[in-house]
Amino acid sequence: MVLRPVFSFKEFGTRVSDVLLRRNDAALRELIAKAGDEELASVIDPMAGDEKVRTLRALPAERRAKIMGELSEYSQETVLRLLKKEDLAAMIGAAESDDAVDVIQLLDDAARARIVGELRRHDPNGLLPLLAYGEETAGGIMKTELARFRATMTVDEARRQLANAPAKRVSQQIYVVDEQDALVGTIAPLKLLQAPTAAALAEAMQPAPASLPSTMDQEEVARQFDEQNAIELPVVGPKGKLIGIITADDVFEVMEKEYSEDISRLAGVDEDDHVSDPVLRTVSRRLPWLIVNLGTAILAASVVGLFQGTIQKVVILAAYMPIIAGMGGNAATQTLGVVIRALALGELHELNTLRTVAAQTIAGSLNGLANGVIMGGIAYAWAHDAKLAVVIMVAMTVNMFIAGLGGAIIPVVMKRLRIDPALASAVFVTTLTDCCGFFVFLGLATVFLT
Amino acid sequence: MVLRPVFSFKEFGTRVSDVLLRRNDAALRELIAKAGDEELASVIDPMAGDEKVRTLRALPAERRAKIMGELSEYSQETVLRLLKKEDLAAMIGAAESDDAVDVIQLLDDAARARIVGELRRHDPNGLLPLLAYGEETAGGIMKTELARFRATMTVDEARRQLANAPAKRVSQQIYVVDEQDALVGTIAPLKLLQAPTAAALAEAMQPAPASLPSTMDQEEVARQFDEQNAIELPVVGPKGKLIGIITADDVFEVMEKEYSEDISRLAGVDEDDHVSDPVLRTVSRRLPWLIVNLGTAILAASVVGLFQGTIQKVVILAAYMPIIAGMGGNAATQTLGVVIRALALGELHELNTLRTVAAQTIAGSLNGLANGVIMGGIAYAWAHDAKLAVVIMVAMTVNMFIAGLGGAIIPVVMKRLRIDPALASAVFVTTLTDCCGFFVFLGLATVFLT
Repeated sequence: MVLRPVFSFKEFGTRVSDVLLRRNDAALRELIAKAGDEELASVIDPMAGDEKVRTLRALPAERRAKIMGELSEYSQETVLRLLKKEDLAAMIGAAESDDAVDVIQLLDDAARARIVGELRRHDPNGLLPLLAYGEETAGGIMKTELARFRATMTVDEARRQLANAPAKRVSQQIYVVDEQDALVGTIAPLKLLQAPTAAALAEAMQPAPASLPSTMDQEEVARQFDEQNAIELPVVGPKGKLIGIITADDVFEVMEKEYSEDISRLAGVDEDDHVSDPVLRTVSRRLPWLIVNLGTAILAASVVGLFQGTIQKVVILAAYMPIIAGMGGNAATQTLGVVIRALALGELHELNTLRTVAAQTIAGSLNGLANGVIMGGIAYAWAHDAKLAVVIMVAMTVNMFIAGLGGAIIPVVMKRLRIDPALASAVFVTTLTDCCGFFVFLGLATVFLT
Repeated sequence: MVLRPVFSFKEFGTRVSDVLLRRNDAALRELIAKAGDEELASVIDPMAGDEKVRTLRALPAERRAKIMGELSEYSQETVLRLLKKEDLAAMIGAAESDDAVDVIQLLDDAARARIVGELRRHDPNGLLPLLAYGEETAGGIMKTELARFRATMTVDEARRQLANAPAKRVSQQIYVVDEQDALVGTIAPLKLLQAPTAAALAEAMQPAPASLPSTMDQEEVARQFDEQNAIELPVVGPKGKLIGIITADDVFEVMEKEYSEDISRLAGVDEDDHVSDPVLRTVSRRLPWLIVNLGTAILAASVVGLFQGTIQKVVILAAYMPIIAGMGGNAATQTLGVVIRALALGELHELNTLRTVAAQTIAGSLNGLANGVIMGGIAYAWAHDAKLAVVIMVAMTVNMFIAGLGGAIIPVVMKRLRIDPALASAVFVTTLTDCCGFFVFLGLATVFLT
């Protein structure tokens, strides 16, 4: 089967709606069996609540929790409200450990307490200890299903145990631990094939690879996979005890989440804001961000208010002032974009921060001068007013100097304060360039043009 | 070794500078041997040209091409200008096929022609056919190093060949092909371990997994990995002929690149704009974007220019007008962010586009009404001018209706026209909200307040 692009699944979505309508559960099961996780989630998201539940129930039990994790927050809430207790328990019991934990963490306090109570009595997949890890840490995204053997075991015995192991218990690497369960080495399955049967695993193994502490932030985990070109890395607890593995497909989810977060925050929306959400939820999610922006807009407008007398005398200033403020905002956004991206990709560090701030400020100023000359020239050609042209040129340069400086410093300071720079930098910096743009331009105009 | 966060490598960078300064190449080799690819690239990027070359030469030959691929565009140009021809040839010869092809594609026409000439005479790694694939397609990012056997071979013979295969020729899966080299199945190394030695591979294998056509766009490849939770997928040419594999670490690179592209384009900067670039390069890269923005700012300002008479009579309008325009811009950016993200993640398709546009438009209008009431209320409290308050409220609602509509429709139309919606949507939409905001507000003010 050669894959077709996911994007063209109009037909798939239509056929799912059709079998749902005809209440043909056998056809539904067959239809969704082959769909990818996110493809399926994006067909479920816009459905009515009971259809969401029916579609999930038509999936094999071990796949339901994974699909739950892909749904929008709104869909997850709807499904959890409608799902029967026994269906929820079955979903958790059949899932891989990392997906099961994700579902438990979606539950409200009462439902979670009930599940935890059940797990205290019977926890075959070892989920309870996993619930203790922070959701966005290595411990929170790892799974515990892996091939783990003592270093003293023989190659032959390991082969025999692997031959009988259930498929989901087998990792890409075979992990070798000492008596204290500390990770001491790994063996690739192929090497196990080639090793002498009577040898101890300790003789056949490679030294333990780089391993991830269970408390490492998931964003850092993704960066480590990228740095190591890894497809699977072990997670260790105190004293190097092997407690789980993270695989590349978990890292895809993390990368996608971080991508969504950064894009959303730069755009000033909640990361859970989703195209399939009902309108009123969208409105209530965005309103707080807009009200913050309204506050900053009022601040900038009050700067204009200070100069009413000047505008009354030279009305054309009202037309030029949004250009100065807006171009500062554009230059600030450019600088912010490059600096936030560099922070996200780990390219900005103690060694080059000062140089970067200086370079961004100079670049902003030079582009300010260039745009100031162009805009001053246009203004001069229009009205033959040299003083106005010079005021425009100077104000543009100063505001874009501020844009470069603020656009570089503010995200770096945010990062140091452990606030996500993508979250609030844009509001701060554009308020700065709006206020400064209006103040510098109208201030210069007051001094030189009235 | 438990990993430390990449971000805190001040010490690493300082020590690299130090050994470079002391011209101690043995210490340099030892120091950089353990660094991750991107960590190393971000230390090389800010170096002087000759230091970049010395650091690259201190790496094992097979790693140099991979690090080259991680450098900023400016660093790559510098290194290629300074590198000796024989060093370049050695770098290409020692690299994995995908990294080698990436380096060849960085060369200018003359240098590339020379390398291609050499490859025509001697091409042990089969690079020439790889150069024919588009850089951003499955064929362009795949590698050809993989374990491939005929279906008629016995398990025993396959095991013996694998035992002697060089490490880089071994993939995670063992691929089984027919006489025409078409992919017919795969075997996990563990299964090969468990299969009867005399059996043919055809009996021991699993059916061929989903495979990627060589022409598939890399963004779609990344989405397929995510959908399939895959860590390695085969790439096939015409008639299903197996030509390579793509592994999860290649997909990390693609995801990072797509992330960079989208963040950059939303911020209005070139995706190759990099914090370590020299100032003048930064200036010249950003200026074209800024001049486009200047053009749109002049367009919006000319709308203000139409209403000079109105502003002369009611000067306070000059303070309120950037609030109306700016809030439209903010609402448009929110809508754009959510819609562009949904398009990038494949969540928006034929089935839900119309519903999404309608929902975004209604959400924008309702938030416009809310912000209009707040802002109108503030204006009324300030000046007790009910007519002004109503004009502000209506203008805000209308402009945020336009923001919701434009913010949803424009990226969808861009996508249909096969233009990256992240590239130009923001400029279009904010020009729209600026012009409409000024026009509606000052137009209503002209009718009702003068």
